[in-house]
Amino acid sequence: MTRPFATLTEFRQALARLPQPDAGAAEAARARDAMLTKPLGALGRLEDIAIWYAGWRGPLPRLKAPQVIIFAGNHGVTSQGVSAFPQAVTAQMVENFRTGGAAINQLAETFGARIDIHALNLDQPTADFTEAPAMSEGELLDALCTGWAAVDPQADLLVTGEMGIGNTTSAAALATALYGGNPRDWVGRGTGVDDAGLGRKAAAVAAGLSCHRGQLLDPLEALRRLGGRELAAMAGAIAAARTARIPVLLDGFICTAAAAVLERAAPGALDHALAGHCSAEPGHERLLAALGKTPLLNLGLRLGEGSGAALAIGIVQAAIACHSGMATFAEAGVSGG
Amino acid sequence: MTRPFATLTEFRQALARLPQPDAGAAEAARARDAMLTKPLGALGRLEDIAIWYAGWRGPLPRLKAPQVIIFAGNHGVTSQGVSAFPQAVTAQMVENFRTGGAAINQLAETFGARIDIHALNLDQPTADFTEAPAMSEGELLDALCTGWAAVDPQADLLVTGEMGIGNTTSAAALATALYGGNPRDWVGRGTGVDDAGLGRKAAAVAAGLSCHRGQLLDPLEALRRLGGRELAAMAGAIAAARTARIPVLLDGFICTAAAAVLERAAPGALDHALAGHCSAEPGHERLLAALGKTPLLNLGLRLGEGSGAALAIGIVQAAIACHSGMATFAEAGVSGG
Repeated sequence: MTRPFATLTEFRQALARLPQPDAGAAEAARARDAMLTKPLGALGRLEDIAIWYAGWRGPLPRLKAPQVIIFAGNHGVTSQGVSAFPQAVTAQMVENFRTGGAAINQLAETFGARIDIHALNLDQPTADFTEAPAMSEGELLDALCTGWAAVDPQADLLVTGEMGIGNTTSAAALATALYGGNPRDWVGRGTGVDDAGLGRKAAAVAAGLSCHRGQLLDPLEALRRLGGRELAAMAGAIAAARTARIPVLLDGFICTAAAAVLERAAPGALDHALAGHCSAEPGHERLLAALGKTPLLNLGLRLGEGSGAALAIGIVQAAIACHSGMATFAEAGVSGG
Repeated sequence: MTRPFATLTEFRQALARLPQPDAGAAEAARARDAMLTKPLGALGRLEDIAIWYAGWRGPLPRLKAPQVIIFAGNHGVTSQGVSAFPQAVTAQMVENFRTGGAAINQLAETFGARIDIHALNLDQPTADFTEAPAMSEGELLDALCTGWAAVDPQADLLVTGEMGIGNTTSAAALATALYGGNPRDWVGRGTGVDDAGLGRKAAAVAAGLSCHRGQLLDPLEALRRLGGRELAAMAGAIAAARTARIPVLLDGFICTAAAAVLERAAPGALDHALAGHCSAEPGHERLLAALGKTPLLNLGLRLGEGSGAALAIGIVQAAIACHSGMATFAEAGVSGG
């Protein structure tokens, strides 16, 4: 691929010049919303979604080309006994994504989304962050660039998902670095660890924070030291989407932790993103609250793969269809409005 | 049409012999769910939905033919000043449904649902229930039969919606009759009445309960005295769907009040129905709690027309697609499960 950035500094510079929503387009959408054949506000959040979307895509938007991108990575921290599944499952699930057998394949098909799979050096897990930085600067840059380049410039809605045995522990460490609090506030059962496993996850997060003490104030450096390739790639993709004015639906805890790196590095960097759902992984609700995002769905999903966000594609499609497709009171000859 | 019932007694008899879910099919779905390539429970409510749906439709179900039916009726109680819109809007919106300009048209199209519109004697509003029974026995039977006959036997998911200026007041009166409580607990702003209008709605409900005191213990009689043609038609359609083993998504306050008549007349009659969403109309949350139904969506909609339930069609489609389309651990060669 053509690398979008030669250095991390160039990526930081891109974050400093993110485009803003078009206030005029949003205002025009708000004015149109008030003329549509329904009591004002009667479509609830669908109206807010449409106005927000128009701010990024322009007046009378259409949503025809949603893209789901799955990034997969392996994590050295699995040596701390933090997952119920062996690391080999990451590659096995990538194959399952490629042959169409996973939940995300069905969800993408249901809502007409294109799906792309990127396996990131699965045979080279990141370093165990309890002992060393998870990634070198070059590895972080590679992952950010892969994520950035994976976004289809023609897409009109982006979902980023992930697969990586051990990555809820990495996300919990990253969230603790970004927002503080006790490691126990941010760890959860992930794919299904027992109480002892949960204790090992909290201990690993605490060990990681201790190992990298004093080095975590910069959000991208926290990502490098505690994150993983798939987290960095999601951050790169979400930033690329912003640059291309492509709205984003955030998935669960791991995706949101990756996205939060951007928000902490450049406040407002997630203004083009909605929270697709609230995961059953307990740290997610806390993270969404820190970001000020109210999730569209709350159906107890905790799968990753972009599944919760993909499920929310239908909500955004419906919002845009109503906004751009409904008749106005005048067009329909309906009294009131 | 061929009338499905010659008398109200025949309708009552149908309610007494509703089919039950196939426990074997549900059990087989539960067993399949445990073998799919995801941690057990990681798809949250999507897994419950698929198992429930299989209980009505059989193993490895598909969802290909959702049907949305809109029933419209006019209400004599509008003479009490209970709506922000004139009664003429009911017919105007029916025309809007027929020409594709309403929210429900866009929502049905987004999720691939067939849509049918039934305007029920709009030029003959029901009687003002503060003074007399809203409908005669013949009018109630006609509306129940219209609703029943409107269901496509080939549909595999049903949404019933409504349009009827004044019908939140009718639904509030019906809910008060079915579940008790103060009229103020059940009335809301509907299409957008002010505080004075809200007071008139509560007064109308109280007057209706007073007028029909001692005559409201039988749920179908409460429907006849306080309801409206579109409410009766929705009840008829939801009962017909049960008889044909077609799962139902309940819409907002008015639809749910109509459905509650069936549940009060024959406990368990709504086991084939999920609550599609929770409306911003405050009585809806109360009504769902009384029915023991947890809504799939909570996005602040308060439009009626079946809009909230139609929005939830995508959730059910996604649940069924995952359940019937995903690979098992064995098929995909993934460790664990």
